[in-house]
Amino acid sequence: MLTLYFAQGTCALASLIALEEAGLAYEPKKLSIKDNEQRAADYLAINPKGRVPALVTDRGVLTETIAILAYIAQTVPQAKLAPLDDPFEFARLQAFNSYLSSTVHVNHAHSRRGARWANDPAAIADMSAKVPQTMGESFEMIENKMFAGPWAMGEQYTVADGYLFTMTKWLPGDGVDMARFPKVAAHYARMLERPAVKAALAKDQA
Amino acid sequence: MLTLYFAQGTCALASLIALEEAGLAYEPKKLSIKDNEQRAADYLAINPKGRVPALVTDRGVLTETIAILAYIAQTVPQAKLAPLDDPFEFARLQAFNSYLSSTVHVNHAHSRRGARWANDPAAIADMSAKVPQTMGESFEMIENKMFAGPWAMGEQYTVADGYLFTMTKWLPGDGVDMARFPKVAAHYARMLERPAVKAALAKDQA
Repeated sequence: MLTLYFAQGTCALASLIALEEAGLAYEPKKLSIKDNEQRAADYLAINPKGRVPALVTDRGVLTETIAILAYIAQTVPQAKLAPLDDPFEFARLQAFNSYLSSTVHVNHAHSRRGARWANDPAAIADMSAKVPQTMGESFEMIENKMFAGPWAMGEQYTVADGYLFTMTKWLPGDGVDMARFPKVAAHYARMLERPAVKAALAKDQA
Repeated sequence: MLTLYFAQGTCALASLIALEEAGLAYEPKKLSIKDNEQRAADYLAINPKGRVPALVTDRGVLTETIAILAYIAQTVPQAKLAPLDDPFEFARLQAFNSYLSSTVHVNHAHSRRGARWANDPAAIADMSAKVPQTMGESFEMIENKMFAGPWAMGEQYTVADGYLFTMTKWLPGDGVDMARFPKVAAHYARMLERPAVKAALAKDQA
């Protein structure tokens, strides 16, 4: 039995969606970021980085969205959530997810988590003010250069779709109008119709 | 034939090391960041993100270190650069690399690339001043919670070792004394003795 530690509105939504798409049995455990539960001693014993998501398996704990998404895809190959038999296509998927993780998510984090990288309140405010620009530029890259269509990687739905959906969902809060990116916006609407996405959102918002 | 676009002193060193460890034939193509060659039109046609590394294969271009490292490991399985037959161990490796990519590299980037996330020169200076703290905290996490020993993931050398070496190499320039992290420092010294690392460093610095 798997346990997924997550928090509402975070990147952990991508792992919730992947678990639902894979049809895996798992226990969702919700942490409150507001109450700093991700920094509590009992959670740090599970994930010393004090972040979500963390997936507890019978062999140990896995962290980092990219790793968890690939793990889910590899352990349930019949769900076809990644091109597992083609190293080049698998690398394309990993590159897409890595851009979301190390560029898009990082841009977003400067809106509310600027204290990770600066101390002066004026500096943190200046970071926050630039987020609409950096998130807008990232989604221009996705819209024009990366999104294959109809799904993120092409004809086949993959774990990248739930991850992209998670980041797209942040755009209004980051001051970016989703309508600037027609392919991404249509993808977001299509994702909302998937039963697995509905189930994941219900758990995220419960 | 593969072509690796890289720039000196960047995270692309991890891909150079992996290519050398795998014994793959490749053409190294060095870009000058100082001359902004990663933003030139001919390179943007290869990698629209304007970053290194980019690995040109006969099927297309791969970007993002995590994706390139896994691709090299999967295409040369006999080099045993990743635990390819065990999804849990593969995910552990991906999680290690993802921490380097989305946390450690991002911390480092605030030293000289703060203009990605803020405009005010005072804010950019404040970011830069915090880098010794954030890089120090990241390497405490690696030293105490993540580094298995003798190699990053345990008994078997993997692509994570070249990536960790690349980040460790940045510590002096980021104002962090490597000696604070004895396991990481010993790993760094051991890496310097590997023929593949010597060959990669020669190309990086050529």
